[in-house]
Amino acid sequence: MKKIRAAIVGYGNIGHYVLDALETAPDFEIAGIVRRDASNVPARLAGYKVTTSLETLEEVQVAILCTPSRSAQEYAEKALALGINTVDSFDIHTDIVETRRALDASARKHAAVAVLSAGWDPGTDSMVRALLEVCAPKGLTYTNFGPGMSMGHTVAVKAIDGVQAALSMTIPTGTGIHRRMVYIEVKEGYDFADVAAKIKADPYFVHDETHVMQVESVDSLLDMGHGVNLTRKGVSGKTPNQRFEFNMSINNPALTAQIMVASARASLLQKPGAYTMIEIPLIDYLYGEREALIKRLV
Amino acid sequence: MKKIRAAIVGYGNIGHYVLDALETAPDFEIAGIVRRDASNVPARLAGYKVTTSLETLEEVQVAILCTPSRSAQEYAEKALALGINTVDSFDIHTDIVETRRALDASARKHAAVAVLSAGWDPGTDSMVRALLEVCAPKGLTYTNFGPGMSMGHTVAVKAIDGVQAALSMTIPTGTGIHRRMVYIEVKEGYDFADVAAKIKADPYFVHDETHVMQVESVDSLLDMGHGVNLTRKGVSGKTPNQRFEFNMSINNPALTAQIMVASARASLLQKPGAYTMIEIPLIDYLYGEREALIKRLV
Repeated sequence: MKKIRAAIVGYGNIGHYVLDALETAPDFEIAGIVRRDASNVPARLAGYKVTTSLETLEEVQVAILCTPSRSAQEYAEKALALGINTVDSFDIHTDIVETRRALDASARKHAAVAVLSAGWDPGTDSMVRALLEVCAPKGLTYTNFGPGMSMGHTVAVKAIDGVQAALSMTIPTGTGIHRRMVYIEVKEGYDFADVAAKIKADPYFVHDETHVMQVESVDSLLDMGHGVNLTRKGVSGKTPNQRFEFNMSINNPALTAQIMVASARASLLQKPGAYTMIEIPLIDYLYGEREALIKRLV
Repeated sequence: MKKIRAAIVGYGNIGHYVLDALETAPDFEIAGIVRRDASNVPARLAGYKVTTSLETLEEVQVAILCTPSRSAQEYAEKALALGINTVDSFDIHTDIVETRRALDASARKHAAVAVLSAGWDPGTDSMVRALLEVCAPKGLTYTNFGPGMSMGHTVAVKAIDGVQAALSMTIPTGTGIHRRMVYIEVKEGYDFADVAAKIKADPYFVHDETHVMQVESVDSLLDMGHGVNLTRKGVSGKTPNQRFEFNMSINNPALTAQIMVASARASLLQKPGAYTMIEIPLIDYLYGEREALIKRLV
């Protein structure tokens, strides 16, 4: 069997877990890891080619982009221009349609495939939301996140003057409404009450129930666990009160990384263009012979 | 907008609910209903063309087969030979791969599309099972059915000598193990204990915990509600203890019918051939403009 040659672009939190998932997948081999600084190679990467540019790696079929969401499109464009498929976990929901359009044009131009927003939300949660509308076209879906750390909210808190370290936890209170529990270390010379007021007035927090707490050590609170409770009550045909629920309790970056690797596999089976996860058949994400998968899963 | 012209083949329990779902779908129109006896038309079908053969209906694009599983393939072959797409909810899990092969050959020959096993299990549950393996390739999935009526088991009980009427309920006891609660009316001249012993010795029941109860009226116990609890605990990359759960509590034929109508829609977007639900992108099942669906669901 010829293995799929994948490159990891960015070796932060997600990149680390993508390496785990690639090493575990029977159908992949790792072409190399792209980092801004390739001179200081951590022990975990010994045995792999570490470089600062994708072009220097051999026969890369798909680049798994483990860079921040804001720069995902830029890295994707670069890889696509080399005719290399891309997978990202771009998570800015409001910009997905626009980003997909741009990547679709680049991908078609270079006869490559981009799978975007391939994490758990957006990503597999999007697939669950779509599936529940297949089952009950009319009705209400609520996606309840947490308990877990919100990266976006944590970054927003860290940007506030007087904050030394921060953690913003998302707590679901049902019907898609969330409480924000913010834990901070305060810089010397700043007043906790002032800093807390600034956090509560921030656009990220102003519409939510927000509690700010001062702690000795934010680091001692960090936990990569996260979760989702996704519900739909709706109508199938003319029959109401059809009820559906999806729950998960997971290691956040480990799940994201696994989904990205599955999407990298699926990318090789699509025609040139850009795809969100709901646009690709489920079977394409899985390793194995087609009829064997159907026999086992259907 | 040109509407999709669908025929309903078979007007039993599922056919009735397919009519509901087609009448509710904004993008379908009903070409007619095919029944074995077209002379005695129920009031609910007034205004629709009722016929004994698909050929007499005009411009049918897709036939929704609401016939028993055992005859699904035969009806599908007939429709495909007319170049008409088909959807069935064939639920004999062990025969799906073979049936798909046969329908695939017929569908390709006549440039049509067959979507098979498009109910909730097999069907949307299969999609959930596939999705959970995308998230955690290693691990165990358990599909727990019920509480709800098992058609297959009920039919098996009815075939036993001395049974006047029967209902076999499936009760989940976890890890994919089920208890069978069998309610029967006993024919005059038969001994309940004898009949109960025969039921427990039947191949459908011999491996399960089975309780047989004698009741005055089986009819007064009938309820079309059903449910599923589907769980997976598995490994993402090298990270164990990733936990997932899918629950639903639904009207069984209403859900099956809605999924069949969504699959009829999806059939028009596939290349000739036969497909199980995991082989079709989720977005193809949904009504609406592509980017609008992505914006709302992803």
